[in-house]
Amino acid sequence: MRAVAVVPGNKDSLHVRGDVPEPAPGAGEAVVRVLEAGVCGTDVEIHQGLYGAAPGGSPYLVLGHENLGVVDSAPAGAAVAVGDLVVATVRRPCDEPCRPCAADQNDMCLTGRFKERGIGGLHGFMSERYSEDPRYLVRVPYSLREVAVLLEPMTIVQKGIEQALRIQERMAWDPRKAVVIGAGPVGILAAAALRLRGYEVTVAALEPEGTFKDRLLDEAGIDYVSTGRTPLADLEAKLGRVDLVFEATGSAHVVLRAMQLLGPAGVCILSSVTGGSKNLEVDVATWNREMVLGNRLVFGTVNAARRHFESGVADMAAAEERLPGWLGKLITRRLPFTDAPRALERSPEDVKTVLQFA
Amino acid sequence: MRAVAVVPGNKDSLHVRGDVPEPAPGAGEAVVRVLEAGVCGTDVEIHQGLYGAAPGGSPYLVLGHENLGVVDSAPAGAAVAVGDLVVATVRRPCDEPCRPCAADQNDMCLTGRFKERGIGGLHGFMSERYSEDPRYLVRVPYSLREVAVLLEPMTIVQKGIEQALRIQERMAWDPRKAVVIGAGPVGILAAAALRLRGYEVTVAALEPEGTFKDRLLDEAGIDYVSTGRTPLADLEAKLGRVDLVFEATGSAHVVLRAMQLLGPAGVCILSSVTGGSKNLEVDVATWNREMVLGNRLVFGTVNAARRHFESGVADMAAAEERLPGWLGKLITRRLPFTDAPRALERSPEDVKTVLQFA
Repeated sequence: MRAVAVVPGNKDSLHVRGDVPEPAPGAGEAVVRVLEAGVCGTDVEIHQGLYGAAPGGSPYLVLGHENLGVVDSAPAGAAVAVGDLVVATVRRPCDEPCRPCAADQNDMCLTGRFKERGIGGLHGFMSERYSEDPRYLVRVPYSLREVAVLLEPMTIVQKGIEQALRIQERMAWDPRKAVVIGAGPVGILAAAALRLRGYEVTVAALEPEGTFKDRLLDEAGIDYVSTGRTPLADLEAKLGRVDLVFEATGSAHVVLRAMQLLGPAGVCILSSVTGGSKNLEVDVATWNREMVLGNRLVFGTVNAARRHFESGVADMAAAEERLPGWLGKLITRRLPFTDAPRALERSPEDVKTVLQFA
Repeated sequence: MRAVAVVPGNKDSLHVRGDVPEPAPGAGEAVVRVLEAGVCGTDVEIHQGLYGAAPGGSPYLVLGHENLGVVDSAPAGAAVAVGDLVVATVRRPCDEPCRPCAADQNDMCLTGRFKERGIGGLHGFMSERYSEDPRYLVRVPYSLREVAVLLEPMTIVQKGIEQALRIQERMAWDPRKAVVIGAGPVGILAAAALRLRGYEVTVAALEPEGTFKDRLLDEAGIDYVSTGRTPLADLEAKLGRVDLVFEATGSAHVVLRAMQLLGPAGVCILSSVTGGSKNLEVDVATWNREMVLGNRLVFGTVNAARRHFESGVADMAAAEERLPGWLGKLITRRLPFTDAPRALERSPEDVKTVLQFA
């Protein structure tokens, strides 16, 4: 069958190949026909040779972790049936999972010995078909057919917000105001999920005001501020006390500034990564003083557990009900998977590019 | 009566004065005779004129928030009685406390409108007597008479650890290994409280190995590492995965390095503050990547609620039972309060200096 693959560690190695073996489902496994796969920054960085690992014995890695498919075959009595619309989770446990991995469905790993489909050690979902243990397949209603490829990035948002809420059970907390930094797919989905939960949400990003993303956010009742006009340093004065910051740029210039937007007892979610090193001048004394005297908190978040896929489905259904068609506008380009190399080129108004397999 | 006072904002203004009015207890208030008051970095910084505020209308501020006293008079039916050994909490609410302040006993304030005895807006405890609402007085057993002046710094530790444990209820967490950075009173008390909870604890600080603090910690089953011999950058390799870091130096050079000692899903407590600004070169990209990919968390903590005074009493009693006399060794100097200016001079082997009033 055909698939989009890379040679991990080799720069610019993305290619479409026709010699990928058909999935060979193990006992109890389902076969899924891929409908769509999303392209994200991680895919671009693997294409650039920055990281990624092929399965043992394979010279290539099938790319792709943002996925949507339909069950082609499933064992009798499995949790999924032929014709079900499904999204697969990404991380798979090692042979001896640590307690957090076991308890949190392959999340919060302590050993780093996990594998990730389409990223490290296992083929991804940018192929015509794949096989999988049904426990890693999350059913999605057909009403979300046009947007469910956004579920995997939505799980990053779900985990971040869920962890923030669990963490803040440490105190009496009535959050009201949130700032999201960055207007990529994760940033926009985070803003939408926070708005659904009743927060007053402001997104701050590089793009000028009045352009596509600003208008998109405005439709959902979310404020947009261009950091070109209002630098982060001025945003605090403009917004007053912020309870939650969702950092979705991974820019070294933004990360430590992000938590300085917080009011007392506020929480900052770091969801985005940039590779390499970046030395910057930081006033560490002031940063620390604000953290301590304000009882402020910051945490990093990566991956997501199955429950975050399930809450993501619920949020996407709620968004579709409140504002039908809005989520779909985040998918700004659909291309046949045979055009995969073109999918990596981005324009400023792109939000999410999706490869079509069916 | 006599008291140790400063003129806030004036450098080197610490003095003993004899014209401080006797306490005038309001309805329902107790009068407490002060036995001892601890001297801490905050007192030194107020003496240096860096912050601090006198009560409205007063030209001076009675210093001191680490305190121990005995009840001299109390209204009938109050929660404290004449002769009780008591430690007063520090923070007092504003007229319209926010919900966290109300729920958390004047802790986790969102507005910043609180007052603090001996620091901001209210006289402290370095006087022969003071009056107070009994709800701010915590009873201490006479078996802790010799060490109870350490209770207030112990509450900083108690809150930090309690918050870390509450926060980590977000996941399945089996913490085992802790590092405390800094070997001042808060650092040593943090190490002791973590050891009591079964952690393998290492304290890392500037002092050479084999000196007083190293020996003191060794008696309590706590490892000591001199950062002169083993820089923090090398400590990670030496210790393996660390679940909890307690930062008690407030040094800008240490703060951001502290959380890089954490293993996956680890938590770093920032408990210490340094004034002013300090620009340093920081590799923010690496810092952020480690935070995100490791699901790491860091939070600042200041002040403590009444429950942290109560759990601090329990911990001190447990420490006295396990290792009688050990806690008392943290009080390395006792001086009459009339020698207060001398109490501010510190030698490297000093841990806690205490002023005696009785």
